Amino acid sequence: MKLSTKPYKGARDYYPEDKRLQKELFNYINRVCERFGYQEYDGPILEPTELYVNKTSDEIVNDQTYTFEDRGGRSVTIRTEMTPTVSRMVAARRQELVYPLRWYSIPNLWRYERPQRGRGREFYQLNVDLFGVSEITAETEVIQLADAILKEFGAPSSAYTIKINSRELVDYFLKSVLKLNETQSTSLIRIIDRRDKLESANFNALLDALFTPSQRDSGGPNKLLTFLNCKELSTLPIEVKDCSARIKLDELFSNLHNLNVANIEFSPSLMRGFDYYTGIVFEVFDNHPDNRRSMFGGGRYDNLIGSFGVEPVPTVGFGMGDLTLENFLGIHNLTPKVNLSIDLGVLVISKNFQAVNLAIKELRDMGLNVSVDLTSRKLDKQIQSFVKQGLKYIAFIGDEELAKGQLKLKNLVTGKEEFRSPERLVSIVKDTRAK
Amino acid sequence: MKLSTKPYKGARDYYPEDKRLQKELFNYINRVCERFGYQEYDGPILEPTELYVNKTSDEIVNDQTYTFEDRGGRSVTIRTEMTPTVSRMVAARRQELVYPLRWYSIPNLWRYERPQRGRGREFYQLNVDLFGVSEITAETEVIQLADAILKEFGAPSSAYTIKINSRELVDYFLKSVLKLNETQSTSLIRIIDRRDKLESANFNALLDALFTPSQRDSGGPNKLLTFLNCKELSTLPIEVKDCSARIKLDELFSNLHNLNVANIEFSPSLMRGFDYYTGIVFEVFDNHPDNRRSMFGGGRYDNLIGSFGVEPVPTVGFGMGDLTLENFLGIHNLTPKVNLSIDLGVLVISKNFQAVNLAIKELRDMGLNVSVDLTSRKLDKQIQSFVKQGLKYIAFIGDEELAKGQLKLKNLVTGKEEFRSPERLVSIVKDTRAK
Repeated sequence: MKLSTKPYKGARDYYPEDKRLQKELFNYINRVCERFGYQEYDGPILEPTELYVNKTSDEIVNDQTYTFEDRGGRSVTIRTEMTPTVSRMVAARRQELVYPLRWYSIPNLWRYERPQRGRGREFYQLNVDLFGVSEITAETEVIQLADAILKEFGAPSSAYTIKINSRELVDYFLKSVLKLNETQSTSLIRIIDRRDKLESANFNALLDALFTPSQRDSGGPNKLLTFLNCKELSTLPIEVKDCSARIKLDELFSNLHNLNVANIEFSPSLMRGFDYYTGIVFEVFDNHPDNRRSMFGGGRYDNLIGSFGVEPVPTVGFGMGDLTLENFLGIHNLTPKVNLSIDLGVLVISKNFQAVNLAIKELRDMGLNVSVDLTSRKLDKQIQSFVKQGLKYIAFIGDEELAKGQLKLKNLVTGKEEFRSPERLVSIVKDTRAK
Repeated sequence: MKLSTKPYKGARDYYPEDKRLQKELFNYINRVCERFGYQEYDGPILEPTELYVNKTSDEIVNDQTYTFEDRGGRSVTIRTEMTPTVSRMVAARRQELVYPLRWYSIPNLWRYERPQRGRGREFYQLNVDLFGVSEITAETEVIQLADAILKEFGAPSSAYTIKINSRELVDYFLKSVLKLNETQSTSLIRIIDRRDKLESANFNALLDALFTPSQRDSGGPNKLLTFLNCKELSTLPIEVKDCSARIKLDELFSNLHNLNVANIEFSPSLMRGFDYYTGIVFEVFDNHPDNRRSMFGGGRYDNLIGSFGVEPVPTVGFGMGDLTLENFLGIHNLTPKVNLSIDLGVLVISKNFQAVNLAIKELRDMGLNVSVDLTSRKLDKQIQSFVKQGLKYIAFIGDEELAKGQLKLKNLVTGKEEFRSPERLVSIVKDTRAK
């Protein structure tokens, strides 16, 4: 039977050119995270299934996990997101870890979804988390960092909008202003979360249905709609003026403006699906007319670590998927250029194996990445291969070169050939690397 | 219910100090691979199960895979090794790829095994493959590269031995010298492969039983034992003197000696479990008295890519697991030192949010990794946190500092405090990074 050469549906093969780009994108991300004092961590691809139950969105647990029994009868799940894992890891060392604790990771994640543009079954996702800070300075820094990553790629502020909300403020409005009970509030939040996917009339009807007749008579649904349609903090109803969630939001917006993160927007219907959020939530949207969509987001989740039976740790974090980032960079023409990692191709003409290899070792020791044609094909075939691989330079090592102590360097772009000492050759080749 | 904070059995949590070490080890490996002109690639963690059937060792397929059905009823397997994936990827682009093709990857792999020292269920494994070279120069380079990686970590040649054999030579000896048929040969190879795990008498008996009475009468079993006990190519029986496998082995040993890879040993009972090897096989052994064991190995497999229905591609490769490498480095005292990635802790005293953050941004823009204590705790608590994290330097930013344009830098090791311009501060802190 002939085996298929295709990867599993929704998964990606990374050929060297794809891997180079991925590494370059991750380098940008690592650099910014480390500038902000975040340290990289990682956890296993497989986790006990119970870790995800009640810890992530229902949609993911019920429909999107890769869950199975191992050979010992244990139920395991391929990680669908990193937050349960990182919470587990912090909980395991709750006492020894030093706060504020800043961690990031770019895990490989899997969700069983219909593959589509910007969404595969397999993807990578930057996860950034700041543990141990209850103050709004935490949200400030985390949003600043998300913004700094996009700016590192050269994105102008006009390319994206950071929408911000406070689950605490919504909760206060529903319970203390509209006097709704817990059940009503929970149901409403789920409906509001789906607002963008619903027809406006349908959304209004669903909202309306959740109020009691007397709440409806006193204008509850309308008050809620007015609240949800606020586009600025200054236009929020007077009833939430002095609540602490509102004060924190004001401070966050002021901080971000002071940090030149000005493309922010108050968005009271922003919920984000995950149940674990307890305070500020945010989501970054692409402003490009052909790609208007949510790219990534995060928020505060102060109670997750406590669910492992340890003292809770206030936490703010976000996750940024690789595919949405790649789409964003592509559509805004910001994808970084990457170079072939091979600097020089070598054609061996001399039969003096030892001397040839000493010469090659010398080039490598000086920092060149050198690929040798090891076949016994004709020279023109060897040269053709290097041309096809996209190399700029090749060098010939024959007896003449070995006797001279100089190699013949050929520029495959200009066709120019010259004899050069190994040191000079290395510096010529390295000079073109950056270009 | 209280959730467990433990990772899944046999898997590892990488806390930042673990991740730093892993990254450093991978940096060493990447550097050497790229010097030799190898390019990094990757493939998916999940593969269709049929990819592994008949492509890897029976032990792995029958007992060690994580295999399950996805939500669409497809049988998938978490990759247990990289060779089937890389063969699939090369086969998929058989025509477009340019040979010699040099690829490497450090995939995350899973095998359901009893976790033990140097062996987890989850591990990483460097995979190096050279495609398109039938000549013995391919084996030469691949073994040279494996050796160069160990040397890059500072390992002396005396720390390890590279055992080398030729499956082709064994095949020739069994079939052309001893006149055994295909079935006898295959069975013998499996027994020889298990030689180290068997009692000597038991091994001899198993060997003996596979010969026919007439083969036994003409001294077959003894001839085989003599062959298997050869420690040098020069002591091989005269009957294999001119066979091509023997000539290739001679050339390989001579090449490696010329490359100063001298800790090599001919080992005719070395088989390596995988059925796909077709020629030279090799295995690297730790020589440390407390850790005498096989660390990793590889060989030539010329027929695997052809099994995807394309023209075969001659291939030589090896795989090196992270856990065995870590054990080797540890026991020989070669584990690289790694530094905390955070350069400077900042304590904010001024209330001038904007000016403080401008000062911090300046430090980051000059390349420092800066961690700010965002809490409103007392200063001495903040300092304690930085001390516990192992930072060498902290800086204070108060109104006095902002007015002066100088920050107060404190060396946490010596206790010394001094006012420094941002530029000077950055250069002082960077200077201690390397130490």
